[in-house]
Amino acid sequence: MDILHRIGVKTPSPDLVYDALTTVDGLAGWWTDDTSGDPDVGGVLEFRFIPGGFDIEVLDVVPSEHVEWKVIDGPEEWIGTTIDWDLHQDGDYTIVLFKHEGWKEPVEFMHHCSTKWGSYLMSLKSLVETGEGAPSPRDVQISNWH
Amino acid sequence: MDILHRIGVKTPSPDLVYDALTTVDGLAGWWTDDTSGDPDVGGVLEFRFIPGGFDIEVLDVVPSEHVEWKVIDGPEEWIGTTIDWDLHQDGDYTIVLFKHEGWKEPVEFMHHCSTKWGSYLMSLKSLVETGEGAPSPRDVQISNWH
Repeated sequence: MDILHRIGVKTPSPDLVYDALTTVDGLAGWWTDDTSGDPDVGGVLEFRFIPGGFDIEVLDVVPSEHVEWKVIDGPEEWIGTTIDWDLHQDGDYTIVLFKHEGWKEPVEFMHHCSTKWGSYLMSLKSLVETGEGAPSPRDVQISNWH
Repeated sequence: MDILHRIGVKTPSPDLVYDALTTVDGLAGWWTDDTSGDPDVGGVLEFRFIPGGFDIEVLDVVPSEHVEWKVIDGPEEWIGTTIDWDLHQDGDYTIVLFKHEGWKEPVEFMHHCSTKWGSYLMSLKSLVETGEGAPSPRDVQISNWH
């Protein structure tokens, strides 16, 4: 079972979106302030939030086209799942096709993560378009689970 | 293939969320201004947006607990899919579990609709919490597809 999303970021090429997915500063600008680690292939990125976090191995990067991650530590439901980012340019927009693949069950936490990913993707869009995202702990609160 | 979401609406009971899903005025307050039709079981609701719209049959309503819809006209990918709303109270929040079920293929339009649903659910949350949603045509633009 997969979480799917699509956003369009108004920017003349995929370069800035790609940078926001493949640099520690970029990732910290839209997902969580507390990002560290190695964003190159084979490296591990550590993302930390108030209740916990994720360790994610970088499986693939193709400049301005593709990024693929595998979750190696974090909530049980996330471990072993993959997160796939596909970028392409359509006129004035960089289109981001997002997939968080390999959920075993459609648990309530999967519902939550789907909505939360959508919200973080809007944060990524805002970061590139305006220079300011809404990463944790300044992220948009969607529920009692934050 | 299903689109899943979860939001929590800060409100003391599910009543206002239920009203926003089962009255023409409520639906017009968060999804689209141009809502008409019959929100009772067996009725058909007509939702119209700038590029087109959806005709949706109401399959089930259980006050303050459950609403289920079936799409009977609209984009080809939507016809025959079902949309399921499950409500329950958790402390200060009404939890909304949302499922748009029965997509045949994970097409780019499904990615788009997933993100767009998340955004409209935040509009529903805002409507109930503040009295003001962001229905079409004042909806949040997520891409070149709106």
